[in-house]
Amino acid sequence: MNRDDVVARDAADPLTPLRELFALPEGTIYLDGNSLGALPRATAGRVAEVVTEEWGRGLIESWNTADWIGLPQRVGDKVARLVGAGPGEVVVADSTSLNVYKVLASALSIAASDAPERRIVVSERSNFPTDLYIASSLCRDRGYELVLVDSPEEIEGLLDRAAVLMLTEVNYRTGYLHDMAAVTARAHEHGVLAVWDLCHSAGAVPVDLGGADADFAVGCGYKFLNGGPGSPAFLWVNPRHVDRFEQPLSGWMGHAAPFEMSPGYRPAEGVSRYLSGTPGIIGISALECGVDTLLAAEAYGGLEAIREKSLALTRLFADLVASRLPGFTIESPLDDAQRGSQLSLSVDEGAYAIVQALIERGVIGDFRAGSIASGSASAGSPDILRFGVTPLYTRYVDVWDAVDHLVSVMDNDEWRDERFWTRGAVT
Amino acid sequence: MNRDDVVARDAADPLTPLRELFALPEGTIYLDGNSLGALPRATAGRVAEVVTEEWGRGLIESWNTADWIGLPQRVGDKVARLVGAGPGEVVVADSTSLNVYKVLASALSIAASDAPERRIVVSERSNFPTDLYIASSLCRDRGYELVLVDSPEEIEGLLDRAAVLMLTEVNYRTGYLHDMAAVTARAHEHGVLAVWDLCHSAGAVPVDLGGADADFAVGCGYKFLNGGPGSPAFLWVNPRHVDRFEQPLSGWMGHAAPFEMSPGYRPAEGVSRYLSGTPGIIGISALECGVDTLLAAEAYGGLEAIREKSLALTRLFADLVASRLPGFTIESPLDDAQRGSQLSLSVDEGAYAIVQALIERGVIGDFRAGSIASGSASAGSPDILRFGVTPLYTRYVDVWDAVDHLVSVMDNDEWRDERFWTRGAVT
Repeated sequence: MNRDDVVARDAADPLTPLRELFALPEGTIYLDGNSLGALPRATAGRVAEVVTEEWGRGLIESWNTADWIGLPQRVGDKVARLVGAGPGEVVVADSTSLNVYKVLASALSIAASDAPERRIVVSERSNFPTDLYIASSLCRDRGYELVLVDSPEEIEGLLDRAAVLMLTEVNYRTGYLHDMAAVTARAHEHGVLAVWDLCHSAGAVPVDLGGADADFAVGCGYKFLNGGPGSPAFLWVNPRHVDRFEQPLSGWMGHAAPFEMSPGYRPAEGVSRYLSGTPGIIGISALECGVDTLLAAEAYGGLEAIREKSLALTRLFADLVASRLPGFTIESPLDDAQRGSQLSLSVDEGAYAIVQALIERGVIGDFRAGSIASGSASAGSPDILRFGVTPLYTRYVDVWDAVDHLVSVMDNDEWRDERFWTRGAVT
Repeated sequence: MNRDDVVARDAADPLTPLRELFALPEGTIYLDGNSLGALPRATAGRVAEVVTEEWGRGLIESWNTADWIGLPQRVGDKVARLVGAGPGEVVVADSTSLNVYKVLASALSIAASDAPERRIVVSERSNFPTDLYIASSLCRDRGYELVLVDSPEEIEGLLDRAAVLMLTEVNYRTGYLHDMAAVTARAHEHGVLAVWDLCHSAGAVPVDLGGADADFAVGCGYKFLNGGPGSPAFLWVNPRHVDRFEQPLSGWMGHAAPFEMSPGYRPAEGVSRYLSGTPGIIGISALECGVDTLLAAEAYGGLEAIREKSLALTRLFADLVASRLPGFTIESPLDDAQRGSQLSLSVDEGAYAIVQALIERGVIGDFRAGSIASGSASAGSPDILRFGVTPLYTRYVDVWDAVDHLVSVMDNDEWRDERFWTRGAVT
C-alpha cells in the first residue's frame, strides 16, 4: 500500500462530496473533530442572517416571525434523527453538564419512587469528568452514593443495588464503545435505569436510543455535530418517563405556558419541560447548520456509511501505526465493535510535545493527560495522543499524511525541541 | 412644548453620538430594549470573526490562542464595571434561570449553616416568574418555604424568619425600582441574605452591588446589555461568600483544574466555580460587543448620564400620556427614585391589540398579560403596555412620535381591527 492507493480510496469514497460542506483551513489535517467539529460553510451566512436580519431588523418580533420560540424543539427534532429518537423527543438546551443534571435528577426521582431501597449510582472512573462532578453533586444532595468502576466488567456486580447506571457511550480518552443495547438490557433486567452520554457518539456512530430502550440521554453539540465552540447541547427522555417528574432546573421556558407569567410552575408536556432559561438563539442556529451537514449525509448512506468509513479510517490509522511507529501503543480497541471514531495512542515519553510538534506541521490532534495525580480519572493510564476522524471531512489521505508527519516528528527528534514542552491553559 | 422642542433636546443630548453604535432598522421606533436590546453595529463583524477566523481557521487551538478559555471571566470583568463589582467578581455563564439556581443554592447553603432555624425564602409574587419557578424547585428540594408578598411593605414583617430575600431590582411589569442599598441593609439587620436579580437594571440604572453590600446577584445579557437573543447571563457573588460553598451545578469549567480530568470535583477559587459546562463562545462574544456599547458611554457621563436621560425620557412619556391620552393609566411609579427604564400603561380594553396596531405603525413596545388566571403573578393587575427606553439609542423624538402614533391608534379606532387580536406564540 502506498499514498496513491489511499488517494484512490478517497476518489472512490461515496462521502467525498460532503467535505465540500466544510470550510477547512488550507494545509491543515484536522483530527480533532471529536473535541471541536470543523466549521460548516453554511454557518457563517446563517449566523450573519440571524444577527443582522432576525435580531437587527426583526428585533423582538423574531420570537414569533422567525420562530425563535420553537428553535429548541425544531433543532431537537433534527438531532433526534441522528440518535434513533422520535419527533418531539429531543430538545436542544444549555450545556451537557446542565443536561446531565436534569436527566440524572429525573432518573433519581423515578428511582426514589419505584425502588427506594436502591441507593447507588454506578458510573466509570474514566467517564468524562463533568458527568462525574454533576453526579457527585446530585448524589450528595439526595443521599446517594456514586460508585465508580475501573472496567466495564465490574458493572454487572453492582446492578442489584443500583438505582441508575450512567455511562458515556464512547469513552473520551480511548474511544471505547459500549454496546448500548446490551448494557441497557442488562440494566433493565436488574431494575436499573440507564442514562447515556452521547457526546462522543452522536453524529459519529449510529445511535438507536429507541431501539435500545434507553431511559435518558444527553449529548454535545460541538463535537461530531459541528455546532461550534460551546454550542448548546441536547437531551432526550424516553417517552415513558417524560411526563412523570419535573426536572429541578425548572426555568420559564419549560413551563406549559411561559407567557401566562404565572408565579407557579406548571411543566410543559413532554421533553419541553427540560428547557430552562431563554434559549441562546445564535448558538442553536449555528448548531442547526452543523446538524444539517449530518442530515445531508442521508443521501450518501447516512450514519451507516459514516460509521463504515470511520472504522476504515481508524483501522488504516492503526495499521500504519503498527507498521511504521513501533514505539507507540494503540490505546483504542482494535475490535471494530468496541471502537468509536478516534484512535488514541500512547508512547513512553513526550506525548504532549509530540502533539505540539504535529500541530506545528499542521496535523491537529490533541493530548489528554494520564495519571498525573492519584485519584485521577486516568489513574494508572498513560498520557494519550488523540486523533479523531470525522468521515464527513476526514480523508484517507489525511490519515496517511498524519502518520507520515508523526514518523518525521519522531525520526527527526522534533518533539524534543523545548518550545513544544510549554503547556497552554487548555491542553 | 412641540415636536421641534423635542428635536432640539436630542440635538443637545450628550449621549446622541452613541446611537450610531447601533444598527437600528429605518422607520422603527424601538421601545423594547428592556426585552431584547438592539443590535450593536460591531456585533455582526465580531461574530463573523469568531465564526470564520477563530473557529473556522483557529479550530481547537483557539481555546488557547483566542483565549476562549478566559472569555467568561474577561467579559465578566466588563460587566462588573456596570454593576459596582470588582474585577474577578463576575462571570458570564448560562441563563438567568440557571444562575438564580446557583446563587440561591449557595445562599441557602450559607443560611443552613449560619441560621438553620430560618426556613423561609421571601420574594414578590410579581417577581419575574422564572426566578420563582427556580426558587420553588430549590425550596422544595431543601425543605424551605417560598413566601411571596404582594407589596414591598410586607417584606419587613417576614425578615425575622427569613433565610434569604430574593428580589428583582426593577420589576419587569411596572418598572418599580427597589432601593437596593436600603433593602439590603434592612435584610442584613435581620440576619437575612439578599439575592438580587438585575435583569431590568444592569445597564439601565447605576447598580452598586459592592456599595450596597449585597450578597448575590444575577442578570440578563440580552436586555439593556444588548447581547442578542438568548445571550448568556451573568452572576456576581460577594467576595465574602464566594469560597464558602460549592454550587450544585458543578460542571468541569468550574473546576480548579479542568484539564487534570480528575474524577473528583475541586472548585475553582472565586467566582469561576460558578461556571458549569463549556461556555458558549459565539454568544459570549456577541454579549461583549453589547457590553462595550455601555462602556463606550463612560466617555459621555456613563451610567449617571444614562440614568438621567432615562428618567427624562420616561418623564416626557408620562407627561405626554397624561395630557394626550386620558383613557390610559400610568402603571409605573411617577417618583423618579422608584422608576426603572420603562413606562408601563394600562387601558380599559384592548391592550394587546393596541400594542399590535402600534407595531404595524413601526412603534415596537410589548404586552404583558394581567391577571388571566387566579394565582397569576399579576393577579389583580391589569394588562400592561410596556415601553422601554434605552438612552444609548432612544431619542426624545422617539417618545414624542410614539405617543403621536398611540393617539392615532386610539383616535382612529385602529386597534379594533380584528387582525390585531390574534395572539402570537410569544406575547
